[in-house]
Amino acid sequence: MTTIALDAMGGDHAPRIEVEGAILAARELDVRVLLVGIEATVRGELDRHKTRGLPIEIVNATEVITMTDSPSHAFRRKKESSLHVAARLVRDGRADALVSAGNTGAVMTIARFVIGTLPSVDRPALAAAFPNMKEKISVILDVGANVDSKPAQIEQFAVMGEIYYRAIWGVKRPRVALLSIGEEEAKGNELTKEAATRLKQLSLNFVGNVEGRDVFRGNVDVVVCDGFIGNIALKLSEGLVEHIGGMLKKAIKSSVASQIGYALSKRAFDDFRKRTDYSETGGAPLLGVRGITVIGHGRSNPNAIKNAIRVAAELCRLGVNEKIEQELSSAAAVPARG
Amino acid sequence: MTTIALDAMGGDHAPRIEVEGAILAARELDVRVLLVGIEATVRGELDRHKTRGLPIEIVNATEVITMTDSPSHAFRRKKESSLHVAARLVRDGRADALVSAGNTGAVMTIARFVIGTLPSVDRPALAAAFPNMKEKISVILDVGANVDSKPAQIEQFAVMGEIYYRAIWGVKRPRVALLSIGEEEAKGNELTKEAATRLKQLSLNFVGNVEGRDVFRGNVDVVVCDGFIGNIALKLSEGLVEHIGGMLKKAIKSSVASQIGYALSKRAFDDFRKRTDYSETGGAPLLGVRGITVIGHGRSNPNAIKNAIRVAAELCRLGVNEKIEQELSSAAAVPARG
Repeated sequence: MTTIALDAMGGDHAPRIEVEGAILAARELDVRVLLVGIEATVRGELDRHKTRGLPIEIVNATEVITMTDSPSHAFRRKKESSLHVAARLVRDGRADALVSAGNTGAVMTIARFVIGTLPSVDRPALAAAFPNMKEKISVILDVGANVDSKPAQIEQFAVMGEIYYRAIWGVKRPRVALLSIGEEEAKGNELTKEAATRLKQLSLNFVGNVEGRDVFRGNVDVVVCDGFIGNIALKLSEGLVEHIGGMLKKAIKSSVASQIGYALSKRAFDDFRKRTDYSETGGAPLLGVRGITVIGHGRSNPNAIKNAIRVAAELCRLGVNEKIEQELSSAAAVPARG
Repeated sequence: MTTIALDAMGGDHAPRIEVEGAILAARELDVRVLLVGIEATVRGELDRHKTRGLPIEIVNATEVITMTDSPSHAFRRKKESSLHVAARLVRDGRADALVSAGNTGAVMTIARFVIGTLPSVDRPALAAAFPNMKEKISVILDVGANVDSKPAQIEQFAVMGEIYYRAIWGVKRPRVALLSIGEEEAKGNELTKEAATRLKQLSLNFVGNVEGRDVFRGNVDVVVCDGFIGNIALKLSEGLVEHIGGMLKKAIKSSVASQIGYALSKRAFDDFRKRTDYSETGGAPLLGVRGITVIGHGRSNPNAIKNAIRVAAELCRLGVNEKIEQELSSAAAVPARG
């Protein structure tokens, strides 16, 4: 049974959502959940549910990291926070994976420096799942763990993303692409030109450069880029989905006929919303950390927490970290310099 | 009366769409249109309409640039193309502005090197208009004319974008922001950190760094970034709108009730589509070129061509180029080095 250290104080509605997510996970999945947080608060929330016999335990932590704490402040000054305690549980082998819907920057920093990176990894990378037109998933990484990446780091992102995709979506030879401004190599910037040269030398299925629109077209599985680009892509997509949802609602409210229409087509809308809800896909793993780490959205609901736990448990069960280390340390990978 | 050199062979359905757009423009706006293209073909198209008395002329060009021609091939090898001829008309003062819905890379290269840049501009920048949640427009630049921009170029983009926004949308002090991965300056990359320092010294209304989602929130008017980032943002947005449109259609087709619903709410959908149709906003100006240059989408309809002509004529009438040159050459602007 996999043991998950869940930061119970992470999300916008912690610890209520985290506790409910932990209960769902403990019921439905083969996992033990350590709820890490202010014990009295977490206990109070847990006592509102029937949890007898479920593999859930509380681990006390005396501090809480807020969404406005800077990552360095959270890392240096809040050593007794739920996130630090949860990370130490993983570092010390008392848990297999860390899951948090808290301050993303703080999770990334604490995971990286408390748990540590895999020996062959320069920088961990955050991998986000985007639903695409083929009703499949395209994974983009890095979406925010690093800026000003070096070509060798982009190469590591490709190796890590490919292994992650294979593990979670069961595709044997995922198509890996480099995010650029045109398919021709000459169209990129300095980073993509050097990175493309390296990616072509790997044994993975590198299909070349793709443009922004290809993320949604479903013609590629794993898209690699520097974290500055990936983060802007992620936030822009979230903003646009929010915008379109708002416009539709407003347009529909503007006439009685379309309100009746809305009532009749409600199921279609609900399906649509569900598919554009990134939390459904189960959180973003921070690949390259010595212990599996999955970051949920701050607005996660219990189902999203459960899904993040499911992904973390799967990554453990499938030995994703061992595969990443093996692949990156083998001769197949170009040594990480430049 | 403003004279527009319209590349009649540019878009996906040239010259039909261009001719129809030119007729709309000549009827509704105070412009003279020079339709530049293969004379016989353009004439054949024009003769299908009643154009007697309209200020439309044909200027012959013997070559056509295709969407697959590389910009350098188009620039070096197709000197008798409609785009080259149209650019020369502007360079030689026979037209005030160039409008093309053709190969964007080719238009950018030919405009830059045939017409030339303004004396104080290092690199022209392509400015795209994004409809936002406040039912206003946010302009992003650069969306693809440059990669690996220097901080001084980002600064010039800000000055040019601000003047463009003021001219077209009549806002006195547009809010200018720098696209980054968080509002805090420390969160950006090397480029944004240096660029922010420079932007703060300008006399324009710089409101700081914004994230991807802010592009759609309407809390800023002009968003500046390197062209690699801006192009990915533009293509990603187009791809996501296409994706969501497809999902809605599919979801609606899946039940009779939602089909009836769709029929009833059709006007709401049409409004929505129109608002997400970037061609409605009238093409993207390539700011910093010595003659006004506006690039339309390859899939432009006649209305989009007319709107691109309208924007070009407005930019001429309002002396946007003179204002850009004046602002950038004045002491207020930090000299373009770095």
